[in-house]
Amino acid sequence: MDLMQKHCVPCEIGTPPMAEEDEDRYLKEVQGWALLREGTHKLKKQFKFKDFKGSMDFVNRIAAIAEAEGHHPDIGIIYNRVNIELFTHNAKGLSENDFIMAACR
Amino acid sequence: MDLMQKHCVPCEIGTPPMAEEDEDRYLKEVQGWALLREGTHKLKKQFKFKDFKGSMDFVNRIAAIAEAEGHHPDIGIIYNRVNIELFTHNAKGLSENDFIMAACR
Repeated sequence: MDLMQKHCVPCEIGTPPMAEEDEDRYLKEVQGWALLREGTHKLKKQFKFKDFKGSMDFVNRIAAIAEAEGHHPDIGIIYNRVNIELFTHNAKGLSENDFIMAACR
Repeated sequence: MDLMQKHCVPCEIGTPPMAEEDEDRYLKEVQGWALLREGTHKLKKQFKFKDFKGSMDFVNRIAAIAEAEGHHPDIGIIYNRVNIELFTHNAKGLSENDFIMAACR
């Protein structure tokens, strides 16, 4: 599968979300992400840092990847913690793009 | 009152939160902020931008002010929208510091 070698591809409105069996398969390829299945399916992970500056450095790295990939996670910053939520708006659920983003280091 | 001329002062653990009548008085001095009174009292405002880059530019400006003032809002980024929540952790509610931050341009 090697998600780290892949890049996001545009996802048109109305694209169906990933099937649950595919979600389970892809989830094994990414570390520490929770799969939320209430309502719109999403991937969620909390990252902890030493301080607010650590959070902001991380968020700016994420932002650069998000812009390069054209795929933007929801980002929550609470001092030294950053919550990242990934889903594909146009698919109303998860797509391979979300797992590609989750696989980024 | 002139909040824009003031700077945040350290707030010790156990400091009582602002009285509701003071919240009402300070709220008139800041534009577009909602006062949340369910549970811990907070100030909340959503800012909208052209795109994700607009959001990130704003968040980085906020982050610099937060570091300079030693007072860090909760920040939520959803593509071109940024939700800011202000409260004073050590007071378990609002303090003048929150309104000073809200008054920033």
